[in-house]
Amino acid sequence: MKRLSSAVETDLSKPSSTTEGNYDLITFLERYRTSFNGLTLIFSLFFTITLSAQQPQKKYVLVIHGGAGTILKSQMTPEKEKGYTDALNEALEKGSAILNQGGSALDAVEASVRILEDNPLFNAGKGAVFTNEGKNELDASIMNGKTLAAGAIAGVTTIKNPISTARAVMEKSPHVMMTGRGAEQFAKEQGQEIMDPSYFYTEDRWKGLQRAKQDDAETIIVDSITKQSLLKQPENKDYKYGTVGAVALDQHGNLAAATSTGGMTNKKFGRIGDSPIIGAGTYANNKTVAISGTGWGEYFIRLVMAKTISDMMEFGKMKLKPAADEMIMKRLPALGGDGGLIAVDKDGNIAMPFCTEGMYRGYVKEGGKKVVLIYK
Amino acid sequence: MKRLSSAVETDLSKPSSTTEGNYDLITFLERYRTSFNGLTLIFSLFFTITLSAQQPQKKYVLVIHGGAGTILKSQMTPEKEKGYTDALNEALEKGSAILNQGGSALDAVEASVRILEDNPLFNAGKGAVFTNEGKNELDASIMNGKTLAAGAIAGVTTIKNPISTARAVMEKSPHVMMTGRGAEQFAKEQGQEIMDPSYFYTEDRWKGLQRAKQDDAETIIVDSITKQSLLKQPENKDYKYGTVGAVALDQHGNLAAATSTGGMTNKKFGRIGDSPIIGAGTYANNKTVAISGTGWGEYFIRLVMAKTISDMMEFGKMKLKPAADEMIMKRLPALGGDGGLIAVDKDGNIAMPFCTEGMYRGYVKEGGKKVVLIYK
Repeated sequence: MKRLSSAVETDLSKPSSTTEGNYDLITFLERYRTSFNGLTLIFSLFFTITLSAQQPQKKYVLVIHGGAGTILKSQMTPEKEKGYTDALNEALEKGSAILNQGGSALDAVEASVRILEDNPLFNAGKGAVFTNEGKNELDASIMNGKTLAAGAIAGVTTIKNPISTARAVMEKSPHVMMTGRGAEQFAKEQGQEIMDPSYFYTEDRWKGLQRAKQDDAETIIVDSITKQSLLKQPENKDYKYGTVGAVALDQHGNLAAATSTGGMTNKKFGRIGDSPIIGAGTYANNKTVAISGTGWGEYFIRLVMAKTISDMMEFGKMKLKPAADEMIMKRLPALGGDGGLIAVDKDGNIAMPFCTEGMYRGYVKEGGKKVVLIYK
Repeated sequence: MKRLSSAVETDLSKPSSTTEGNYDLITFLERYRTSFNGLTLIFSLFFTITLSAQQPQKKYVLVIHGGAGTILKSQMTPEKEKGYTDALNEALEKGSAILNQGGSALDAVEASVRILEDNPLFNAGKGAVFTNEGKNELDASIMNGKTLAAGAIAGVTTIKNPISTARAVMEKSPHVMMTGRGAEQFAKEQGQEIMDPSYFYTEDRWKGLQRAKQDDAETIIVDSITKQSLLKQPENKDYKYGTVGAVALDQHGNLAAATSTGGMTNKKFGRIGDSPIIGAGTYANNKTVAISGTGWGEYFIRLVMAKTISDMMEFGKMKLKPAADEMIMKRLPALGGDGGLIAVDKDGNIAMPFCTEGMYRGYVKEGGKKVVLIYK
C-alpha cells in the first residue's frame, strides 16, 4: 500500500445535527461494550430508545455529475453557468425527493440521470454529440449494489432516455448488455419512449461536429506506446467528451450507480467508451461503493476504473477518498488519460475527484442543502 | 480475507529440471542475503555466473481454452474427442513456437486464438453459433499486460478472425472498443480478412439454433432477484455458450490475454457477453496476471471477473490459485452463474478453474510437454 496516496480523507458526510450526535455517542458506547460489559449494554439500550423516540432522519446521499473537462470560469457566461447550475439542482431535487421518502437508490439515480438526459446542455440524451456520420449514438448503464444486477445499452439512436432502457435490460431481460438496432427493438417491446432521431439535433452539437471534423483533418498524432501514427485523438476534449451520472445511498443502505452519454463528437467505427461498461464507467456494490465516471473513456476501460476503486476498498482495506484519488489523480494521468468520477460508499462518504479543469457536479444528504460545483 | 478459499495452491509450474533447481537455490540465497551479507553475495554471484554459462531456457507459459460447459465423457465419441484434442494441441503448438523463439505473449495468444477461430468445433470465428435472426455475430478482445493497452470488437458478422481485428483496434486506433457495422468498416480499412457471412455457416450450429428456438419457446423462467418472468434463460447452456481464449507469459516477462466468441445461440437484441469486455472476460497486467474467461457471460460482467482476480492479487496480496478459485468456485455459482477461466500470473503459475462439468483446455511451458484436458 506504500505507493498509494497519503491524502487525508475529507469526510464530506461529517454529521452536524443533534440526532447525528446521539448516533455518534451510541457508536462510541458500542465500541467500548466489551470493556464496560453489562453496564454499557444498558446505556446503549437507553440511548437507542431515546434515538427511536426522536425518529431521526435516516442517512441518504445523492451525488451527480454532468461531465468533466476544461471548464474555465473565464470562458463561462453567467447565463450558461446558471443553466448548468439550475439543471444540476433540478436533478438533485428529483433524486433526493425519492430518497427522502424512503425510495430506492436505483429509482433516485435513474430519476436524476433522466433530468440530465432531457437537458440539451449535457452530452447525454437530448444533448448528445454527433458521430462522424452526423448521427447521435447513445450509451448508458446502471447497476444495483444490493444484487450486483446490471444493465447497459450502447450505440442506440432513437431512445429518449437510455438510462431507463438500461434499467429495463437489467430487470426485464436475462442480459446485461445490448447494442444497436437489437437494443432499440428491445426498448420498443418494453414500451420505452422512442423518438425520431431528429429529436437529438441541437445546433450547438452540430457546430461542435463541424469544428471537430476540421480539427481532426488537421492533426495527426503519434501513439506513445507503439510510436505509430494513429487515427486522430481529440485535440479539444471539451466539446468532444461529456457524460452524466448519479450515485446514491438510500435509507435502506443500498447503493446504486447510473451513467449516460452521447459518447464522443465525430466518433467513427461504432466506438464505445466506458459509460456502458460495467466496472469501467459504472459500478455499485453494497459491500463497498457506487461509482459513475466521466472522461476519456478508453483510459477508464483500460484501468477498469470503477471496479478497481471498489477492489482497493474490499481487498486493500482502503478508504474511498485515497482509493479514488490514487486512480483519478495518479494512475489515470500516468497512463495519459484524464477525467473524473463521483462516488458514495456504503457509509455515506462521498468523493468527487477530477484531474481536469472542472467537473459539473453536486450532492445532497439527508437534512442538508443541495451543493452544486463546477470549477476546481 | 477470512472469507476466501483456504484451498492449497497447486503450483503447476513447479520446476523439475536441473537449471530450474539452480534458479531455486539462488532464490533461496537471495532471501537470506540480509543475514549472510557479503558472503551470500559472493555465493549468489557464483551461481548466477554458473547459470549464465548453462544458458538455461528462459521461462514462458501458454494456456488456452475452447470453452466450458456440460462436457461429459459419456456423451463424447472418440472421433469428436480427437477433433478437440488435435485442435487444442495445434493451437498450443502455434503459440508456443512463437514464445520459444522469444516472441511476444501478444503474438502467441493471437496466433493460438486464430487456430481455434478457424476450427468449426469451437464457438468462435468459423464455428460461431447463430443468433435468433440466423446470423453469426462475433465478439473478441485482447489486452497487453505490459502497457495495459486493449482492443475489442463486438457484433461483427463478416470478419474471419475477430481477435486480429481486436488487436488492430488496440494498435491502430485511439479506441478500445468498436461495434457492428462501424467495426467492420474499420477492419476493412485495416486490411483484415473479410468473408461473406455464409463462411460462418456450419450444419451443427444451424441445428443448434433450431433446438434452441424450440427450447426457448417452451420455457419461461423466473428471475431470482426480481421474481418477475423474464426473457428465456438458456436451458441447455452446452450448445448455447462457448468461447475460446489464450493467455501467455513470454520470455521477456510480459503477459497477454485474448478471448473470442460467437456469443450465445439464439441471442436477440444485440446481446453482448463478457468476451469483448475488458476486465470481465479478458484482462492482462504485468504486475499480476493474464486471464481469459468462458461461461455465462452476464455473470462474468456483473462480477467484473478477470479484473477482480487481478485486484485480489494486487491489493489483497493473494496468490493466483486461491483468488481464481474464490471467484469461479464460490462467487460465480453463488450469484447463479457458471463457467471457467484460464490464467497465468507474472511468475508463470497457472490456474484453470471451472465449475461446469468440463472445459476444453491445455497448457505448455518452456521445455515441457503440451498438456490437453477436457473433463474434470
